[in-house]
Amino acid sequence: MMSQDLSTASATAPAPLSGPVAPSLLDHANERAEPVLREVVGTLQPELRRVCGYHFGWTQPDGSPTHGVTPGVCLRAALALHAAGAGARTTAGAAEAAEEAAAAVLPGAVAVELIHNWSALHDDVMDGDALRRGRAAVWAVYGTGWAILAGDALLAAAHRLLLTLDEHGPAALRLAAHTTSRLVGGRSAELALRHRAPAGVSVEEYAAVAAARSSALLECALAGGALLGGADERVVTALTRAGHHLGIAWRASRDIEDLWSGTSLTGKPVMNGLREGGPSLPLIAALHAGNPAARTLADSLGGGPACPPPPDELVALIEHAGGRAAAHEISAWQLTEALTRLDEAGLPSATHSTLRALFRYTLSHG
Amino acid sequence: MMSQDLSTASATAPAPLSGPVAPSLLDHANERAEPVLREVVGTLQPELRRVCGYHFGWTQPDGSPTHGVTPGVCLRAALALHAAGAGARTTAGAAEAAEEAAAAVLPGAVAVELIHNWSALHDDVMDGDALRRGRAAVWAVYGTGWAILAGDALLAAAHRLLLTLDEHGPAALRLAAHTTSRLVGGRSAELALRHRAPAGVSVEEYAAVAAARSSALLECALAGGALLGGADERVVTALTRAGHHLGIAWRASRDIEDLWSGTSLTGKPVMNGLREGGPSLPLIAALHAGNPAARTLADSLGGGPACPPPPDELVALIEHAGGRAAAHEISAWQLTEALTRLDEAGLPSATHSTLRALFRYTLSHG
Repeated sequence: MMSQDLSTASATAPAPLSGPVAPSLLDHANERAEPVLREVVGTLQPELRRVCGYHFGWTQPDGSPTHGVTPGVCLRAALALHAAGAGARTTAGAAEAAEEAAAAVLPGAVAVELIHNWSALHDDVMDGDALRRGRAAVWAVYGTGWAILAGDALLAAAHRLLLTLDEHGPAALRLAAHTTSRLVGGRSAELALRHRAPAGVSVEEYAAVAAARSSALLECALAGGALLGGADERVVTALTRAGHHLGIAWRASRDIEDLWSGTSLTGKPVMNGLREGGPSLPLIAALHAGNPAARTLADSLGGGPACPPPPDELVALIEHAGGRAAAHEISAWQLTEALTRLDEAGLPSATHSTLRALFRYTLSHG
Repeated sequence: MMSQDLSTASATAPAPLSGPVAPSLLDHANERAEPVLREVVGTLQPELRRVCGYHFGWTQPDGSPTHGVTPGVCLRAALALHAAGAGARTTAGAAEAAEEAAAAVLPGAVAVELIHNWSALHDDVMDGDALRRGRAAVWAVYGTGWAILAGDALLAAAHRLLLTLDEHGPAALRLAAHTTSRLVGGRSAELALRHRAPAGVSVEEYAAVAAARSSALLECALAGGALLGGADERVVTALTRAGHHLGIAWRASRDIEDLWSGTSLTGKPVMNGLREGGPSLPLIAALHAGNPAARTLADSLGGGPACPPPPDELVALIEHAGGRAAAHEISAWQLTEALTRLDEAGLPSATHSTLRALFRYTLSHG
């Protein structure tokens, strides 16, 4: 239904980018992806099934169903399913072609979601993050061992799913291996950055980590979807670049939100990023601003006999030095780049409009 | 050199199975596998490189080389490399054919070793095992986060290696996905067994967990090596069955060793298995012996107001009830089955002799 609506919009006059469009697109993707996800989890050993069912928001810790709890949003699967339309050869009947492509791409789309959740389960253990999507993280409910094992189980399941693909299976497996390696490498680089003084971390280093940590899966979803949908290499490359910029934009936006929103949309406690000493973009940008507030901030972080100021004072200093504005600017520029790369991909108009809407949604809700 | 020695031995008069044969075979495999393993680790992000280098025994915790420390033994890579000879078509020049097959199999053999180490790194975190190969486990040196990440990095590297294979690549990837899923499922089943009273666990349940936890990788090494070496399906199936029995034999043997050897050959503290309440075969067998000692043992474990007896008394009770003898018998029977399946595979004599020697070595040192 949604696809039909979008197919009537031309590339020069895309559907509105705000409003209910993106959530409906996500519901549509969830309706497709969730049954496959449930089927995959259903094949696991009983204890793992319970742990993963809880993780995906389907059950309570004791395994009873969660009526009324908002289901997890399969954003990456949605990107892959809609990117599949990039391979549609004709503009006539584009909606039908996109639907068909999405069906062929489904195992790949769910695999991306599984890889994302492998990473999320292990990340939460590594960071000691007790919240995931507003609920207690798996490790906090079942212990570290089950969180590690559940992550491993989902990654193994992703590989099994990718092995069911025919024509583009080898390319999809290659993309998955590249993506998991980047995620692990990015995570390692991020942990290493935490041991360095924030003043010594450049915006470029931040962007490199953000690309590996946040862009990798978006690139994988977009490029994988297009690839499995039969798109040519030029389109796959353009979508990969779009995902690269979208991931950095998202990460920058989340760093801002971590410091200035009352409650984080990702369900994490506010100020997490700063407390962990991770590479928060507003902080890095503020430290490089070269103004008096930046020097005050550097002094207050730089040790010396005095205690560091309380978090709210630090956040005010970051804003005063221009860190918030600079991070906003970077995030906006990266989103513009992402949308430009998307425009350049020469997609069928329905796919183009849908992905534009999903890009904006990713930035605010990813 | 070793292969030539073995190629002169006929299938009916195999080379001696004890003595220096198996260690030399392992050295030979190590010489092949280690450079590839080092190359793989060399591609990782610097911090991960250090953590993995330590894990493989190449470096100290600070990254300096470990002159004089025994290197890790690539047993699973050795099984894969030697199983490659199963695909040799001729008996004349068998040693050369086996050498050639081993070269083609090398990426697969190293991938099995990487999968094993992914599993080992995560297992040690889950079990809180502070020792691995007689040294401090990675989590105990670098923390839980790095152990999880290093494991993930090695699994991703295994996939990248398998993707370099040509002809039999898809089959090898399928085998790897099947193996990682079995390892995770077996681990989950094992953790679940720990929450049950040992008296309620049957020997069959024990064997099922042992097969998933210990046989899976041996089957993968043997079947994968044969497959990549060009062996036909009948041979691959026979070697899979051999690996199945070998894994159970090994697990049973290790359970005995955990309770009755002064120091474990695996570098784990003695009694680990029993203290963790894991499914130790001597304990399970003793509890099912149906004799007075079994009843005393069951009573002493079964709660009641009295404290459980100290570990050495428990071990004496297990032995008195016949648990040690029964576990020995099961291990010996499983090894016989493994060797019989190996005999039935109709392997070239050099490969047959080599694998027999490696099977016996696995049982005592795996």
